[in-house]
Amino acid sequence: MSPILAAAKSAFHERGFHGTSTRDIAARAGVSLPTLYYHHESKQGMLVAVLQAAMDAVLSRVRAAIAEADTPAGQLSNAIEAIVLHMTADLELASTAGEFRYVEHDHPQRAEYVALRTEMEDLVEGILQRGLDAGDFHIDGDIKETLRYLLGACQAVSIWYRPGGARTPTQVAQSYAATSMRAVGAQPNTSVVLAPI
Amino acid sequence: MSPILAAAKSAFHERGFHGTSTRDIAARAGVSLPTLYYHHESKQGMLVAVLQAAMDAVLSRVRAAIAEADTPAGQLSNAIEAIVLHMTADLELASTAGEFRYVEHDHPQRAEYVALRTEMEDLVEGILQRGLDAGDFHIDGDIKETLRYLLGACQAVSIWYRPGGARTPTQVAQSYAATSMRAVGAQPNTSVVLAPI
Repeated sequence: MSPILAAAKSAFHERGFHGTSTRDIAARAGVSLPTLYYHHESKQGMLVAVLQAAMDAVLSRVRAAIAEADTPAGQLSNAIEAIVLHMTADLELASTAGEFRYVEHDHPQRAEYVALRTEMEDLVEGILQRGLDAGDFHIDGDIKETLRYLLGACQAVSIWYRPGGARTPTQVAQSYAATSMRAVGAQPNTSVVLAPI
Repeated sequence: MSPILAAAKSAFHERGFHGTSTRDIAARAGVSLPTLYYHHESKQGMLVAVLQAAMDAVLSRVRAAIAEADTPAGQLSNAIEAIVLHMTADLELASTAGEFRYVEHDHPQRAEYVALRTEMEDLVEGILQRGLDAGDFHIDGDIKETLRYLLGACQAVSIWYRPGGARTPTQVAQSYAATSMRAVGAQPNTSVVLAPI
């Protein structure tokens, strides 16, 4: 991530999109406003670029995590670990997901970001569907609601987790994976343990 | 909630705390700035008042939900239903919880809000502890992590839920309760069904 986008990410995390000015971002990055505008046409553009960077990062992790297991249970466990490790690896980056609601509906890169997010959701929903079809998972209610339940629990890690606390990222990721396995009616402990990235 | 606080709540939901000016709030409420400042000393004060109103509402629901059951499983199921119904009853109000990070550390009412939030978390953690002690629940990892997992899943309802969709608030609340029961290793369907409020 470029120093300008890294500055935008930190500023959005601390003050939110609307609480941040392009001037704040330029000052944090140590560049002039003209330099900033040479690279990014607007604050909206920087928000979408940060959101895309976050979604690219979590998508790569989730794809790799799924590829490392060959059962729905192993894949779900790995995917949840991967998502939690994405959250703890860069809390500022992960927390920007909440600023998505400030992306203008007609922003040219909005659809691209939504497509990435949908791909991530579809990957996890696919695991749930295969687990249900195989009789490995048992859920209550709707599959999309279960998906949102699991992803909502993981997303909140970016709000409460603080590095240096009692629990390491790997411990949190593993216990979230185990809790998620129970939540879908599968047995925990079938996971391939991933190293923190 | 007063018309001024209701206007503040809607504005914070739409544009975030830093994206909202006291002038915006006055205009939404249809009052003059002097009238607004007669009732509220600052935008910070309005944010804390909205956050407190949200926490008061969810606390009342959770206390009542717990009182209606006499087993940890019944209480957890009821508490999760109550929290989800709080989310769906007023999505704008529920979504303001995310603006807490913008409350100044030395704001006089900050500690009061944190105490309410702690009371809510302690109520749910107490249920988890009693369920574990009784052998009704089985969790992986840390009890506080499980608490955050459950509350994180519920909090996200304010982000994705839209009224008028395929699922009613009661359906979502019941399926979240059942998924949460599975997540803590208890059997679903021991819940006393609450009417939506």
